[in-house]
Amino acid sequence: MDKQKLFELIKQYRSFLCIGLDPDTQKIPKHLLDSEDPIFEFNTAIIDATVNYCIAYKPNFAFYEAYGSMGVQSLEKTIRYIKLNYPDKFIIADAKRGDIGNTSDRYAKSIFEHLSCDAITLSPYMGKDSISPFLKYKDKWAIILCLTSNEGSADFQTLPCADGNPLFIHTIKKSAQWGNINNTMFVVGATNNPSLLKDIRKIIPEHFMLIPGIGAQGGDLNLVCDAALNKDVGIIVNVSRDIIYATSNENFAIAAQIKAQEYQNKMEAILKNKNLI
Amino acid sequence: MDKQKLFELIKQYRSFLCIGLDPDTQKIPKHLLDSEDPIFEFNTAIIDATVNYCIAYKPNFAFYEAYGSMGVQSLEKTIRYIKLNYPDKFIIADAKRGDIGNTSDRYAKSIFEHLSCDAITLSPYMGKDSISPFLKYKDKWAIILCLTSNEGSADFQTLPCADGNPLFIHTIKKSAQWGNINNTMFVVGATNNPSLLKDIRKIIPEHFMLIPGIGAQGGDLNLVCDAALNKDVGIIVNVSRDIIYATSNENFAIAAQIKAQEYQNKMEAILKNKNLI
Repeated sequence: MDKQKLFELIKQYRSFLCIGLDPDTQKIPKHLLDSEDPIFEFNTAIIDATVNYCIAYKPNFAFYEAYGSMGVQSLEKTIRYIKLNYPDKFIIADAKRGDIGNTSDRYAKSIFEHLSCDAITLSPYMGKDSISPFLKYKDKWAIILCLTSNEGSADFQTLPCADGNPLFIHTIKKSAQWGNINNTMFVVGATNNPSLLKDIRKIIPEHFMLIPGIGAQGGDLNLVCDAALNKDVGIIVNVSRDIIYATSNENFAIAAQIKAQEYQNKMEAILKNKNLI
Repeated sequence: MDKQKLFELIKQYRSFLCIGLDPDTQKIPKHLLDSEDPIFEFNTAIIDATVNYCIAYKPNFAFYEAYGSMGVQSLEKTIRYIKLNYPDKFIIADAKRGDIGNTSDRYAKSIFEHLSCDAITLSPYMGKDSISPFLKYKDKWAIILCLTSNEGSADFQTLPCADGNPLFIHTIKKSAQWGNINNTMFVVGATNNPSLLKDIRKIIPEHFMLIPGIGAQGGDLNLVCDAALNKDVGIIVNVSRDIIYATSNENFAIAAQIKAQEYQNKMEAILKNKNLI
């Protein structure tokens, strides 16, 4: 999927919502725990209920790897389920990988060939040869950490460099050169000062951003959109806990659907207001 | 295992060698490909052959994840095999993880609880809350990327910051405060200028460093040791391809043994020369 197709998908669903699939057996409804694969059952119920309101799903790999190869099987089954039943969905592997070139080659093989995901989140610390292997795949995306939404983002990402700019500005300026607007996005957290989002948008006017931090983490959708939308929308907003754990009882899928629809409604209003649809 | 026990292990084996387990079905001997689990067969043959010459094994997770949940099963079996047969070995999960706090919690559970590894490599880009969950486990280690041995290390790690120091100095100074000398190591690549290794050793006189880049990547063992050894040895040197792919024929395990022994012999000579054993 290239940038234009992503824009078309957003217009079709009147939504730029990505739903984070972070299944936690401590949090998923108790009645599912008796099934053969509770994580898969939980995910498919959430997916079926929310599919009309989002354009993307983002499984967070840690929540599967916590259960070892069994968890990775649940992840494989979930991704196959989406590909088979909802082939137009954009699947983001939230894995935050990053290693030397020959190792990143193997991660790319894992994410893009074995799992058939459309995109992967990547850590930039090891530089170009850690990212490049992911850019060799046609219609696949590298989503590079730039300025994240967690407390620790202040430790290094905002560290002032010799030219006066913080590290995340260097990250974005340098890594934007490695790929192009059809294969590279950046993670920019919603809980940061919206003026930083505006600064980043000026540097990358055409790139897509993946924006986590809305919902449980406290980011504000309208502020984010005012700062970061561009002529092709240019943002994918991720919500995880606020949707998938809307309730912990047997009505979890309906509750997730209602929440997802609320986000979609807000996004549709914003897109109309900005004359993007 | 704390720092003192690691030092005892090094003295016992007269070696600070870590062997990287990076199995690649394109490279492992062809006669193994007919077995039920070629990766596990390859790993166990390498481990049995080299166990007297090293203190640690470091499976590189990308080489398992490339084969999906089947590969992760081979990884689980390999780690169980080492724990069962050679319980004194130090097992490093080379996974380079790093995510927001609640996600890093899950990665820590995966690596330290499910897989029972002793240590994990971590990317520092997301800051303190991405590392802290790994520091809560007694006798387990966080090994934080500082200055790596790949070409891309020049993209951000050596970027000058406002105080004149490169980013990797900030990484090491700040993250050394999060844990202590019994639960935190740093990855410092061997192919860098030895004077940088010396600079880093001055900042962290007591911490262990994990040093990759010897062998196929071109780093020099003697130069590394001159720059980085401390009173408790303080370094674990990793070699992967140069040992595990010493030959690609049926004698691969013996060839790996000979190579591992060569490294051990060199390390023993260095340890004696520095009066560390």
